[in-house]
Amino acid sequence: MNFSIEHRDPGSSARAGSLITDHGLVRTPFFMPVGTAGAVKAMHIRDLREDIRAEIMLSNTYHLYLRPGTKVIAGAGGLHKFNGWDKPILTDSGGFQIYSLAHIRKITDDGVIFQSHIDGSRHHFTPESAIDIQRDLGADIIMAFDECTPWPCEYEYAKKSLSRTHRWLDRCLEHFDKTDCKHGYTQSLFPIVQGSTFEDLRMQSAEYIASKDSAGCAIGGLSVGEPAEMMYAITSLVCGILPQEKPRYLMGVGTPANLLECIALGIDMFDCVIPTRNGRNGMLFTRDGIINIKNEKWKNDFSPLEQGGDVFADLQYTKAFVRHLFICGEMLSAMIATTHNLGFYIWLMKEARKHIQEGDFAKWKAEMVIKLMRRL
Amino acid sequence: MNFSIEHRDPGSSARAGSLITDHGLVRTPFFMPVGTAGAVKAMHIRDLREDIRAEIMLSNTYHLYLRPGTKVIAGAGGLHKFNGWDKPILTDSGGFQIYSLAHIRKITDDGVIFQSHIDGSRHHFTPESAIDIQRDLGADIIMAFDECTPWPCEYEYAKKSLSRTHRWLDRCLEHFDKTDCKHGYTQSLFPIVQGSTFEDLRMQSAEYIASKDSAGCAIGGLSVGEPAEMMYAITSLVCGILPQEKPRYLMGVGTPANLLECIALGIDMFDCVIPTRNGRNGMLFTRDGIINIKNEKWKNDFSPLEQGGDVFADLQYTKAFVRHLFICGEMLSAMIATTHNLGFYIWLMKEARKHIQEGDFAKWKAEMVIKLMRRL
Repeated sequence: MNFSIEHRDPGSSARAGSLITDHGLVRTPFFMPVGTAGAVKAMHIRDLREDIRAEIMLSNTYHLYLRPGTKVIAGAGGLHKFNGWDKPILTDSGGFQIYSLAHIRKITDDGVIFQSHIDGSRHHFTPESAIDIQRDLGADIIMAFDECTPWPCEYEYAKKSLSRTHRWLDRCLEHFDKTDCKHGYTQSLFPIVQGSTFEDLRMQSAEYIASKDSAGCAIGGLSVGEPAEMMYAITSLVCGILPQEKPRYLMGVGTPANLLECIALGIDMFDCVIPTRNGRNGMLFTRDGIINIKNEKWKNDFSPLEQGGDVFADLQYTKAFVRHLFICGEMLSAMIATTHNLGFYIWLMKEARKHIQEGDFAKWKAEMVIKLMRRL
Repeated sequence: MNFSIEHRDPGSSARAGSLITDHGLVRTPFFMPVGTAGAVKAMHIRDLREDIRAEIMLSNTYHLYLRPGTKVIAGAGGLHKFNGWDKPILTDSGGFQIYSLAHIRKITDDGVIFQSHIDGSRHHFTPESAIDIQRDLGADIIMAFDECTPWPCEYEYAKKSLSRTHRWLDRCLEHFDKTDCKHGYTQSLFPIVQGSTFEDLRMQSAEYIASKDSAGCAIGGLSVGEPAEMMYAITSLVCGILPQEKPRYLMGVGTPANLLECIALGIDMFDCVIPTRNGRNGMLFTRDGIINIKNEKWKNDFSPLEQGGDVFADLQYTKAFVRHLFICGEMLSAMIATTHNLGFYIWLMKEARKHIQEGDFAKWKAEMVIKLMRRL
């Protein structure tokens, strides 16, 4: 993997660059559509590639491990072969879903024993097994096995958890170094900064992660319920410590406004279920603000979903028609909203990049976040 | 509307021709994907046009009347403008759903009073209102308001119902002649042959419908539970009476094998929810037979969904991946199955047409129906 920064915004810490993997180039900053089970919900792989023009997708190790099982995907030749997405993929370590979905039995220094949220079956994840599974899946970027603390979190627990996350990181790195990629292309492992919302823990963690000299660095444990201001403060603090020349990935963030604010703080990579999940519930993000398309006010609005939008769904469908589909519970409503919202997120990242290149990102961002948060 | 028969199969009653409407040409025989609420479930309008290459779609008056309401669609400039499908559309009269979905209050000679299956609201359909609504919707082909009798049905009820259906037809025709199209293009009204599975009633009805000299003729009340052999026998009987030079539409039929058998009997037009509804449940129709894609046997089958298939989904996705999506309950599974099955139905109609043109339809059909009914 190769990362280079090509432009820096004079008015903020924003950067624009290129991340090159064996499955191709990704321009930064970027947003990764979430393909939980190996595919983005309600979207054809072809449309993700050709219409949305996503350059990378994320997939969840926890879900793929449970279904269809690592063996099936390894047998296919890795996730790229299994789902037919031939561009870069990032997989998380499974940790986040173990804490948020599974019925946890026990966290020990060794790892986590948990019960599947699907059938209650019992499983054991360790830093080593999380790496092994991600070797089988074969994503271009894989993540260290960590504990994502909830918010709010007691200081003592956050401190103890962080210490374990760091010990687990060392085991992940050691196991990663001892093992090879399985499907003929290289993988990069990103460690994750934790420490809840405690500044000293976050600084300590950022320094620890920086010391590992990994291909990239991630910030986890944010956007878990804390106020946005707190998320920005921690992100800013951590970005000041992480190596400048490495890509920085803020996990699980966020709204369009969150993304622009965090780009300004020096983040290069994002993923989030907001555009897809909220879209399926009728929330559309547009250049002029947020639309609840189920609202009565769109009933007779025959204007395109988003005039000037650059995915096919924006011009193909009118607001009135999409509202009608939502009211009827038609699956097509979720498909349209997903296509629109992901198209919008990708467009927003491209715009951000353009303004970083042009040197006026900070000014553009300040105006844009106000528009983006408006309710239409 | 203009219909011309260009080829007749020497070994059967199959015909191949062209149906020309103000929204374009449709080659016969054809299958109409069902767009219940104005759009085919789980499929983008663009994909129906550009990938499946459907030349006509069907939509349901009952559903559109209830949601979003005729007024909204008329306000958009008709259904073509509302849903963005600019090729021909056929709407049914609403009758079928009133009997199958609504809570019926009362059928009288005047019409039907029924309660919506959605909110229990009370509505009144008459032959005249069914025409008015279809004028508002603006489909190229609209249907007479009839009673579709269930199967089995008492002879006396079928006879009484048929007589009412014929009286309603006269009122539909009269009202149709008295009213104009609303959106600037012409509409054609098709009467419907009923009579349950009673030969004398069917013959009487076919003669009555033939005497109306309408642009086309439909056969309703079949494929409602009777054995396939009975459906073929009635279809054959009726086709022998209906005018040769008019298009014939067999409503609500059927499986791929049903379609080929009925083309051989002289049918030109079909619609059915089987490819879409069964697809959403994991049943895939292929050139080699029927696949239940949820079956364990496909778990590690990394071959394309259908080798040689001509829609993008056939080659983009493997059987193992689609099975995985079904097992996970991913919406994408329904999207893929819908795309595949409709693509297959449209392909089958094109093949049938080709064999009619080449004069070997009967032989091809005999071999094909055996393959199509095979369980893989």
